[in-house]
Amino acid sequence: MLDDLDFLKDCLNEAAIRSGATVVGESFYHFSPCGVSGVVHIAESHISIHTWPEYKYAAVDVFTCGDDVDPEKAARLITERLGAQSHSLIELRRGIMEDSQVECAR
Amino acid sequence: MLDDLDFLKDCLNEAAIRSGATVVGESFYHFSPCGVSGVVHIAESHISIHTWPEYKYAAVDVFTCGDDVDPEKAARLITERLGAQSHSLIELRRGIMEDSQVECAR
Repeated sequence: MLDDLDFLKDCLNEAAIRSGATVVGESFYHFSPCGVSGVVHIAESHISIHTWPEYKYAAVDVFTCGDDVDPEKAARLITERLGAQSHSLIELRRGIMEDSQVECAR
Repeated sequence: MLDDLDFLKDCLNEAAIRSGATVVGESFYHFSPCGVSGVVHIAESHISIHTWPEYKYAAVDVFTCGDDVDPEKAARLITERLGAQSHSLIELRRGIMEDSQVECAR
């Protein structure tokens, strides 16, 4: 499945919807001999995946903003759909400014 | 410039080339009332940008793999082109496995 572009595209789109995000576009590429890179663009930033089927490894980024979108729901769905035997999750806060948090204005 | 889609597209493409990456595609969006989201797809993963002109803030991700690509060169170029008065840079290692580092097979 890490080499199945259509499956991964559906997976990321589903994850975006599950998180409450608004999908605005997508772009996916299949590499030779194997591997898929893809981005689902959302109004609240993006969800990306890069796979290395030869290593049974995938790197996923769920970049969201605002209080209405829950990136963990997206991450969880992707992890489940991929049937990951193990995964690690890192949360990074972006754009924190003194005394206030940047909110997505769009 | 944080609201100038064409400028940002050129900027990220130039950054990709500067870092030694191979560009395979791009997708950029302009939001209303303002703001740009864009991804330059590279064989070695991706470079993305999300801008909040109303906050004079941009979030850039430079995701690369392999020894031939230098993500810092891309980050530096983008920071310079945007004329950032301040910036913060965080480096995250992805996909490190026990006793070996994942190399990009493509």
